Amino acid sequence: MPSTPSTSIEVPAPMDTLPFRSNSKGVRLDPRTLLKSGKIDWERLGALNNTSLVHAKDLDRETVVALARAAALLESVHIEETKPLDGKIAITAFFEASTRTRLSFESAVLRLDGKVLSVPDGQVTGIAKGESLVDIGEMFNTYGDVVIMRHPATESVDEIRQNLAVPLINAGNGSGQHPTQGLLDWYALLKWRPTLATPDCPKEDRIHLGIVGTPGSMRAVKSFVRIALRFAGAVEKITIVSEMADPVGLDLGNEVENSPITVEVTNNLQEVVADLDAIYMNSIALLGDSYKRLDSRYKLSPDTNLKPGAVIMHPLARNNELDPALDDTMHNLYFAQAAGAVFSRQALLCAVLGRIGRLADIAGR
Amino acid sequence: MPSTPSTSIEVPAPMDTLPFRSNSKGVRLDPRTLLKSGKIDWERLGALNNTSLVHAKDLDRETVVALARAAALLESVHIEETKPLDGKIAITAFFEASTRTRLSFESAVLRLDGKVLSVPDGQVTGIAKGESLVDIGEMFNTYGDVVIMRHPATESVDEIRQNLAVPLINAGNGSGQHPTQGLLDWYALLKWRPTLATPDCPKEDRIHLGIVGTPGSMRAVKSFVRIALRFAGAVEKITIVSEMADPVGLDLGNEVENSPITVEVTNNLQEVVADLDAIYMNSIALLGDSYKRLDSRYKLSPDTNLKPGAVIMHPLARNNELDPALDDTMHNLYFAQAAGAVFSRQALLCAVLGRIGRLADIAGR
Amino acid sequence: MPSTPSTSIEVPAPMDTLPFRSNSKGVRLDPRTLLKSGKIDWERLGALNNTSLVHAKDLDRETVVALARAAALLESVHIEETKPLDGKIAITAFFEASTRTRLSFESAVLRLDGKVLSVPDGQVTGIAKGESLVDIGEMFNTYGDVVIMRHPATESVDEIRQNLAVPLINAGNGSGQHPTQGLLDWYALLKWRPTLATPDCPKEDRIHLGIVGTPGSMRAVKSFVRIALRFAGAVEKITIVSEMADPVGLDLGNEVENSPITVEVTNNLQEVVADLDAIYMNSIALLGDSYKRLDSRYKLSPDTNLKPGAVIMHPLARNNELDPALDDTMHNLYFAQAAGAVFSRQALLCAVLGRIGRLADIAGR
Repeated sequence: MPSTPSTSIEVPAPMDTLPFRSNSKGVRLDPRTLLKSGKIDWERLGALNNTSLVHAKDLDRETVVALARAAALLESVHIEETKPLDGKIAITAFFEASTRTRLSFESAVLRLDGKVLSVPDGQVTGIAKGESLVDIGEMFNTYGDVVIMRHPATESVDEIRQNLAVPLINAGNGSGQHPTQGLLDWYALLKWRPTLATPDCPKEDRIHLGIVGTPGSMRAVKSFVRIALRFAGAVEKITIVSEMADPVGLDLGNEVENSPITVEVTNNLQEVVADLDAIYMNSIALLGDSYKRLDSRYKLSPDTNLKPGAVIMHPLARNNELDPALDDTMHNLYFAQAAGAVFSRQALLCAVLGRIGRLADIAGR
Repeated sequence: MPSTPSTSIEVPAPMDTLPFRSNSKGVRLDPRTLLKSGKIDWERLGALNNTSLVHAKDLDRETVVALARAAALLESVHIEETKPLDGKIAITAFFEASTRTRLSFESAVLRLDGKVLSVPDGQVTGIAKGESLVDIGEMFNTYGDVVIMRHPATESVDEIRQNLAVPLINAGNGSGQHPTQGLLDWYALLKWRPTLATPDCPKEDRIHLGIVGTPGSMRAVKSFVRIALRFAGAVEKITIVSEMADPVGLDLGNEVENSPITVEVTNNLQEVVADLDAIYMNSIALLGDSYKRLDSRYKLSPDTNLKPGAVIMHPLARNNELDPALDDTMHNLYFAQAAGAVFSRQALLCAVLGRIGRLADIAGR
Repeated sequence: MPSTPSTSIEVPAPMDTLPFRSNSKGVRLDPRTLLKSGKIDWERLGALNNTSLVHAKDLDRETVVALARAAALLESVHIEETKPLDGKIAITAFFEASTRTRLSFESAVLRLDGKVLSVPDGQVTGIAKGESLVDIGEMFNTYGDVVIMRHPATESVDEIRQNLAVPLINAGNGSGQHPTQGLLDWYALLKWRPTLATPDCPKEDRIHLGIVGTPGSMRAVKSFVRIALRFAGAVEKITIVSEMADPVGLDLGNEVENSPITVEVTNNLQEVVADLDAIYMNSIALLGDSYKRLDSRYKLSPDTNLKPGAVIMHPLARNNELDPALDDTMHNLYFAQAAGAVFSRQALLCAVLGRIGRLADIAGR
């Protein structure tokens, strides 16, 4: 495994000149390094106009990189006067409540001068009257310009799209997908090591990615891995650490088989941990209708034999699998990951709402 | 019954030049036909400034028509620069949760550049502390400029008004009223056949209205029928189809008796359905504290012997009384009905908030 | 006790020229009397930039007066063009639902052209996934510019602040504190008798303050009393009326002992009521995890032997301890108290968000 990453991409200026607060602890990422690593692919972003994002498999490598660079732009500049989402209404339809993800999307919209129609806890309302998602989709067409939905049922995204004429952004559908989490995870990873975003990632910068958890039943992990599989040339190997016999699952399994990246599975974290450059973990697996927490053997703490320079990623909220004692170390990439969420979502929203031109204008200034 | 409606009102131009998305399926209504059918009565709308809308009986025929034409204006033109509700705050106080109705009102406000204070599920909060609606009304005076309330108790509207100094819009009070649903239902009906809005509706355009349900205990149906009773000269006959002995109820019964329109009651849908020009149905009756669903005999499906050209209306959400197989037919007016909801509510909000002058300015351009 | 307060501060003009609605019943307070009573201490307000307000004890007399006068300015003038909170996002994180307090804050923000991220019922969401307040604080840093939190746990404010980089406004933490309620209570009291805000309050204007309730376990009462203790020279005496052996509690007890103001405790309301100039009451005491309502002996009604000119204060919601028959009397200061809430909160928000300069600009016009 490579251990001394190249530092060919120059950081432009001190981070305290950036317009936004960075995370309070752990690794602090400078979005301008990602901007310096290559041009924003405006054409590819423009093609996302009026499209939905439901599955992580809809995202190719170039789109992930283009969205990450657009996010980096949004994180680097003052855009007060631009009002990229002016006149647009986003509906945040959370049929499964989630403070964090909902507020992250709503903050993204409000900061760009869009407006929000919020359903903070749709489970209370829709189900009581037996309202179908198909009919709700029909209604939403006249209420807003994009629907951001979380729902406990995997099939929900297909139901609501039957009559929906505006873009749908899937913010988590049961044990299905969570593609915007995947995008923001990769935004953090690409900021951390911008050469991963380049077509010719130097060999010494390539990473061995560890996944602690069960991609098959953890939607955030599943979406992250699916995107990782597009980054052959940057990801050298993926090791999945799980107690389950088949942690990958049918759906993702096909992608794994067709990928040039080596994917291994183990149930022994200690055996592999010292070789991992980046470790992605999550706490909760959806099994049927209930949650299953991560096995206690898979806990990360300051006692874990982490590789120097290795970073830990976690979509949060966490349980005890990720010791807060790691927060103050440079292994903590999860706070930086969270801190970039709003910008990653802003880039996507600008793209699907046809406002990518306004970002291009900012870049051209 | 008349069967070949006149087509004297000319449709101005292709619908795809309209600024908003229409419904995805069923009849698509052009708001400009309603605008062509007569002038907007600005004076009558101006008189609504600072008034409340609690009961459908507060609405006379001229006001219903004026609000529908103002809605048609709002649905026909680009008003981005006008900001009709600029500086106004609407409180959506839903003490009974309802995603659809709440979002419809909030979208109406936000699109006109007003602001929203949202109570998505007030039942959780107010009751826990024994807060009285009288005191809540006193508070709301300083928080916003109009209160849009839904509440499970019929008497709620009277309680909150005791100290309320700003207009109240009743968005459903138990088994009481739902007058804005009545307004939007009539907005759809008048767009569908604009001659119904004229003082001298040609005989061949007059309609036989079927009501499948129980106006006495279904607030949306009750408000719809109450407005229908003001349209003598346009509505030739109303037939109520219900399993109940007295589906009309005391309250509405008096109005029925004093109306020149013939009102009949039957429990046999098949017997009358082929003669109905427009059929209004709903799924849920409030009986005391519980819900009662519509009897399965009263289901509409492609197998129903509908009159050619007849339209079905439904406030939605639906249960199995309205077969989704009808969605793709030209009997489906319910999707168009839903698609006009936002504009109907915008017209009302502009009127009660004293901003009708800004709409008149748009019309005069 | 003094009984004929001085009237040296002149009321500038009729109240109907003010830009906002006053309360519907009871005493109506003119904010301009408070403005006339002394200059706004802009420097002290400017020093609040980027600070949190967690405990009432963080507030000294001068800050309470400065914030009250800034509130009076906001209540007296038209500020539409100023947009004091333009570009700022407030997060209202109500992990314990409260319609009234949440809407009051959100109205304050929206009226000043700020934006709101609303968590109307956070208890549903956070706890389900075991999300820690420490991690939530980390997230909030990138979502908004100020956090307004209510939480059932007293220790919640310390937890969330561990990683929080933006100001925290405590909107009630269990049986702990409710400092913004204290500020708005004192805003009402200072408007009612502006000489209380002056360094040399004439002897005949000083008040005997009655507290009906248990400051030790009622957070609103606790914060109100704590501020009262800073007003030696204006408050001559405080009498606490409670059935409890030690209604003051340890925390507040130390402050009481160190204050020059005489504090007495009685369980007999009738004995003291005729001597009280202002009576502060509340209905609900938090005892452990449950609520305890005020003893029925401590009810105020038109039959109570109130001193002429005495005013009653109550943070509302009320139960039967405060008879609505008093609403129409000039003892009712509680409606005026509620009516000033939005302005009091606006003043605080402008201060902690660094926008006090924009208010100063208004004052200078």
